[in-house]
Amino acid sequence: MHQLLENVFGQAFSNPILDTRHDSAQLTFPPTGMTGTGDVKHTGGTPVPLRLAMTTDSYVVRPLFFPGGDIGSLAIHGTVNDLAMSGARPLYLSCAFIIEEGLLMETLWRVACSMRDAARKCGVQIVTGDTKVVDKGKGDGLFLNTTGIGVIEHGQQILPQNVQPGDAVLVSGDLGRHGMAIMAVREGLQFESAIESDSAPVAEVVLDLLQAGIEIHCLRDLTRGGLASALNEIAEAAGVTIAVDEKLIPVGEQVHAACEMLGLDPLHVANEGRFVAFIAAKAAEHALEILRRHPVSANAANVGRVGDKSAPLVTIKSAIGASRILDMPSGEQLPRIC
Amino acid sequence: MHQLLENVFGQAFSNPILDTRHDSAQLTFPPTGMTGTGDVKHTGGTPVPLRLAMTTDSYVVRPLFFPGGDIGSLAIHGTVNDLAMSGARPLYLSCAFIIEEGLLMETLWRVACSMRDAARKCGVQIVTGDTKVVDKGKGDGLFLNTTGIGVIEHGQQILPQNVQPGDAVLVSGDLGRHGMAIMAVREGLQFESAIESDSAPVAEVVLDLLQAGIEIHCLRDLTRGGLASALNEIAEAAGVTIAVDEKLIPVGEQVHAACEMLGLDPLHVANEGRFVAFIAAKAAEHALEILRRHPVSANAANVGRVGDKSAPLVTIKSAIGASRILDMPSGEQLPRIC
Repeated sequence: MHQLLENVFGQAFSNPILDTRHDSAQLTFPPTGMTGTGDVKHTGGTPVPLRLAMTTDSYVVRPLFFPGGDIGSLAIHGTVNDLAMSGARPLYLSCAFIIEEGLLMETLWRVACSMRDAARKCGVQIVTGDTKVVDKGKGDGLFLNTTGIGVIEHGQQILPQNVQPGDAVLVSGDLGRHGMAIMAVREGLQFESAIESDSAPVAEVVLDLLQAGIEIHCLRDLTRGGLASALNEIAEAAGVTIAVDEKLIPVGEQVHAACEMLGLDPLHVANEGRFVAFIAAKAAEHALEILRRHPVSANAANVGRVGDKSAPLVTIKSAIGASRILDMPSGEQLPRIC
Repeated sequence: MHQLLENVFGQAFSNPILDTRHDSAQLTFPPTGMTGTGDVKHTGGTPVPLRLAMTTDSYVVRPLFFPGGDIGSLAIHGTVNDLAMSGARPLYLSCAFIIEEGLLMETLWRVACSMRDAARKCGVQIVTGDTKVVDKGKGDGLFLNTTGIGVIEHGQQILPQNVQPGDAVLVSGDLGRHGMAIMAVREGLQFESAIESDSAPVAEVVLDLLQAGIEIHCLRDLTRGGLASALNEIAEAAGVTIAVDEKLIPVGEQVHAACEMLGLDPLHVANEGRFVAFIAAKAAEHALEILRRHPVSANAANVGRVGDKSAPLVTIKSAIGASRILDMPSGEQLPRIC
């Protein structure tokens, strides 16, 4: 369904910027290749190219509040992280609310405060907004949209097509917490202690990697479909094989137990503060060291390696040493996880 | 309710850019006054200031299709027009869909095509997007969000605070068609011929005014609350009186008749392709001439004048010559009109 929709819009709106299908669009000012809109004249001085990233996401997570976060902070982190995945420094966010009649003012205020705090923590400003109210029964409490703008200051090509044979595959932390936290609340599952979402901003970490001159080939946040989806999509785009080692992939004990109980693969579960980085092999150790300095990526690990240019394939070596294909998640994924 | 919400977010998110409360945020690159995010370094060359406008709107209009437009074209026009109201040249749009389970694929495709066509007509590109699906009964077919970026190439201060005594008050066309078109469909009202929404982009018109060097003091699109709201808000912000002449304000015959029948004031009804312009008196005739060259503003008219700096007050001279106060719309406005 998700893929079908993407195709509808990809086909209807096709243009060179959209067609790159990044987490964020990359815009150059003054814009090139635009027709019928005239030249962009800067106010004084000679024009120099400025590279911006732009990304949008709506948030329809249910419930609005969950262990480790809420729809408000999630809407800030998610959009900030999408910008970070192109190596952009997030700067400005718009924020639009679709409110179902009857939502408690107190709830709205809690969400707004959570957004404010998260934005502050991320160093971004909410610069414009919109509110719409829909009749009772025509919404679900609250839907949010945040659209973000960041500035790209680095000169690297960070995109799936730039993944190279031999690249190290780093994951930035333990996997599966966001998805399992939502599922636990929604299904009323009880664990010894609540699984907390990993919802968190990762932009600072990425900017640190860039600052240190780490050669980054590709970044991808591990949201819908988890690590398995990200690896398969990137293998496909780059035309490479990727091999990862299960015992090197950090998964918390509780998530592991919960997934086992429910028959889920933690590598298929969504995260909201985790990403995978494809790093030039020679820089992998240094990158890992930088990642581990930040609390949000303290458990970063080098989990695998890009193989040859070939038919795309992702394999995983299991704990007992056997290698198998790591597929895209099949069947229904947990809906409304973000 | 709307005002209450604005206050909640204004209070929670307060920052110098948001606090200007324009239709769009004005962003300067490299950004000034940001703390904790470091300097923005342009890729090559010396930094020159680039001024961008950013605006966001969600669209929850009911029904999705109406005479003269649909939610798709409306979502393009509305956001393009918000950018135009700061004199920006619209360039890039993001587009996010919240789809209720069960929406016909055919409906979605019609909306997407309508967006594509409208974007093309406006000279903007849809560069990034998002789709979310919510369960049946938790949405209402389709909600859209578009967020737009434009570039500000002029050096004028276009904002309510810049409105001056003596300014001419121009409206760009006949009023009330969007609101009455929606109401007619929704309430099953029959007129001799269907009232068509005025939904249309006005950016080209505004850019033409700027190109001609017209001294524009303020622009405001006449959406929710119509001309009456816009004039009252601007009188309040500028601390001036505004006097308009009812017989000079263009209102179509059908809208006039429908409003009379329903006991509505066409000056309170929403438009989606109309704006009011406060123009230096000496440039009013020239501005009007430019407006009238464009089909979308062929019926533009000079409808009044800004009075003294004083307690804010909007008055209207009725057809029979008596002057009365033109209030903000009181009571419930038509919900989900955009």
